[in-house]
Amino acid sequence: MSTSRIRKEVDEALLAFVDRQRPALLAISDDLAPLLSALDALLAGGKRLRPAFCYWGWRAAGCDDGADGADVVQAAASLELLQASALIHDDVMDSSDTRRGQPSVHRRFEALHGAQAWQGDAEAFGAGAAILLGDLCLSWSSEMFETCGLGGDRRRRARAVYDLMRTEVMCGQYLDMLETTRGEATTATALRVVEFKSAKYTIERPLHMGAALAGARPDVTAALTGYGLPLGIAFQLRDDVLGVFGDPAETGKPAGDDLREGKRTVLIALTLERASAAQATALRRRLGDPALDRPGVDELRSIIEDTGGLAACEAMIDRYLGEAERALRAAPITEEARRALADLAVAATTRST
Amino acid sequence: MSTSRIRKEVDEALLAFVDRQRPALLAISDDLAPLLSALDALLAGGKRLRPAFCYWGWRAAGCDDGADGADVVQAAASLELLQASALIHDDVMDSSDTRRGQPSVHRRFEALHGAQAWQGDAEAFGAGAAILLGDLCLSWSSEMFETCGLGGDRRRRARAVYDLMRTEVMCGQYLDMLETTRGEATTATALRVVEFKSAKYTIERPLHMGAALAGARPDVTAALTGYGLPLGIAFQLRDDVLGVFGDPAETGKPAGDDLREGKRTVLIALTLERASAAQATALRRRLGDPALDRPGVDELRSIIEDTGGLAACEAMIDRYLGEAERALRAAPITEEARRALADLAVAATTRST
Repeated sequence: MSTSRIRKEVDEALLAFVDRQRPALLAISDDLAPLLSALDALLAGGKRLRPAFCYWGWRAAGCDDGADGADVVQAAASLELLQASALIHDDVMDSSDTRRGQPSVHRRFEALHGAQAWQGDAEAFGAGAAILLGDLCLSWSSEMFETCGLGGDRRRRARAVYDLMRTEVMCGQYLDMLETTRGEATTATALRVVEFKSAKYTIERPLHMGAALAGARPDVTAALTGYGLPLGIAFQLRDDVLGVFGDPAETGKPAGDDLREGKRTVLIALTLERASAAQATALRRRLGDPALDRPGVDELRSIIEDTGGLAACEAMIDRYLGEAERALRAAPITEEARRALADLAVAATTRST
Repeated sequence: MSTSRIRKEVDEALLAFVDRQRPALLAISDDLAPLLSALDALLAGGKRLRPAFCYWGWRAAGCDDGADGADVVQAAASLELLQASALIHDDVMDSSDTRRGQPSVHRRFEALHGAQAWQGDAEAFGAGAAILLGDLCLSWSSEMFETCGLGGDRRRRARAVYDLMRTEVMCGQYLDMLETTRGEATTATALRVVEFKSAKYTIERPLHMGAALAGARPDVTAALTGYGLPLGIAFQLRDDVLGVFGDPAETGKPAGDDLREGKRTVLIALTLERASAAQATALRRRLGDPALDRPGVDELRSIIEDTGGLAACEAMIDRYLGEAERALRAAPITEEARRALADLAVAATTRST
């Protein structure tokens, strides 16, 4: 299948799954309809990167679309519900207003509270609804994966990867929050967060899940790590750059949102390592200021550029991308998968999810 | 196995599962240790009601401890991690300070933030850590269930119950929050919330999971509903009464916590239906006041007693319990299971989890 064809099939599998849940929810109560519309809106966006890596991990190991194709697409698409859960909860934790160019889920429910003139705290209601919808997506992800139709030893091994990946991403998220809270991230500690929160979760583990579903040989799995881990780091570093310099029309987030949230990214660590005392003080003072306005964003952008932090980050992205490309060239996988994974490397590192 | 023996085996299975995760977390980072200690502290408490119902659902269908006993205990114990997730997230949503007689998870992490003199908002850090630990418990619950060792059609059918139960409890929690927010719950709408949030989740579905693992006949499953659903409602109504009148030493929550949170329980709906205009005004004015002190709690308790709301709730508990007992007597299950389920009915409705 072509990359666009896979995206379409993943979309259809997701819609079919949610459509199977829909009547069950509405049978409990019509009052649950806003949960479904919030999820529909969220799932309308997204690049379906993780399902694509899962699918191509399966193809890389030599499997072809055949009797199992639809089952693998369902297993792959289940990762999109896991991602929906992570985004919904992440936005609550970061108090983010927007996601994929729309109001974040907690803000949607906050607005519903206001529109209905309900009692109590609208913000708490929004956060509560978002926590529960994120829980629902997390549950549905495992349900969608487990009911994909592939049985036996292959699903058992893919599940072990899936389970490990969930643990890794949640631990990575905690460490990410901890680094921001401590405010003392170095490039090394920030990279450790990137590895677990992002590189493994977005690329390496989805590839491994697909490979496990295909019953891949250990050398294939190892080659997918050789490609996936550095690519995953490059992916997150690109995301960090876009979080500061990105076009809101492409990122779906307001300009400079990561600065307002005070994220201790590798980009920030690289900048602080290169900053003069005055630049470091200015950066530290404004970073994490929720009221940071456009001139403030511009000031911090200048510091990140002037110190050479941005250039260092771009050089690091190139280095990790180069590493991934070399590993991909040498990988013992099908030529079709090699081409698709090369395309995905570009898609993952040129604009934001 | 005796009820106390099952509890012990469930405890051991839980500990063994968390102990298998522990090194993986600490290999990522020592900084993850507080997540593990918070979970250990939470899991040290609890009555293990849901695992007990799951186990006895299996025994009720005629299965005996044999080759599969340990696997069924593991599947049953996985419900305790689901419950841990629900409690952790519930406490964030309700801003509860305590759980099982200890600080709630978000308050633990808030305290850690304070003790370390970290940057930023301690409350947001606590909530974020609790959201992530709840997500981890939710993931681990499905991992523990899926790796229980029971294969094939029985696990497939038990998983369908498990999946449905997760959806039901999360939807029930949302409806519960919605009723409190709208502030207009009637006895009928409050009972609908109780059915999904509590009766199905705590008793009926765990019984059905066990029955599915045993490959139970449809008449057994139906009989377990006849017993489990009314018992589950009685269980929640008892919990509601304890939330207002309970001894903090037994409930693990401060006296009158449900009043401070403004919960729109069946007990409150029954009270409002019986209240004079003056009583209703006084109740509505103080309900949901986070600063409600001991004299305030006493005032509301008096209204709930004087209106006959408490007596009506107790009568309702007796009615549902009677219904459950009649269904249990007529159920086509083993005598040993009948005795155990009669004991569990008492345990579930005499004091709080």
